[in-house]
Amino acid sequence: MTRLVMRTRSKPYPVTIGGETQYMCGCGLSATQPFCDGTHKLTRDEEPGVLCWYDADVVRKQIADTFPNIRVPSE
Amino acid sequence: MTRLVMRTRSKPYPVTIGGETQYMCGCGLSATQPFCDGTHKLTRDEEPGVLCWYDADVVRKQIADTFPNIRVPSE
Repeated sequence: MTRLVMRTRSKPYPVTIGGETQYMCGCGLSATQPFCDGTHKLTRDEEPGVLCWYDADVVRKQIADTFPNIRVPSE
Repeated sequence: MTRLVMRTRSKPYPVTIGGETQYMCGCGLSATQPFCDGTHKLTRDEEPGVLCWYDADVVRKQIADTFPNIRVPSE
């Protein structure tokens, strides 16, 4: 019950239902899933062509040119 | 702008907005982000102690006893 998923989005999803808007996590890193907690701001300067992840202290790690074949849901 | 995130949840988040309940993706694999599309059903038999991911054809891959230090937002 532990899995890696891939994300390319660096901003939340605004979801409006019944006239009320909530911001849902888009970057995948929010600590208040499924809602945005602002953590996506850390992802704004991720570089193209680089695969990133964040450790338990929310410190970015990255690797270039090594993209595993992992499902990428559309944004 | 491509990152790996970790998920442990195998069911959606029911979220009530504007008096209406919608189901948000919890497994991380839905193709209709941020909403659930039922893909979490594929994750129900993931085993404890195993790290899983899904390829572009939504076929599960896994590795045991190798957990990278990646942020795990609470469920």
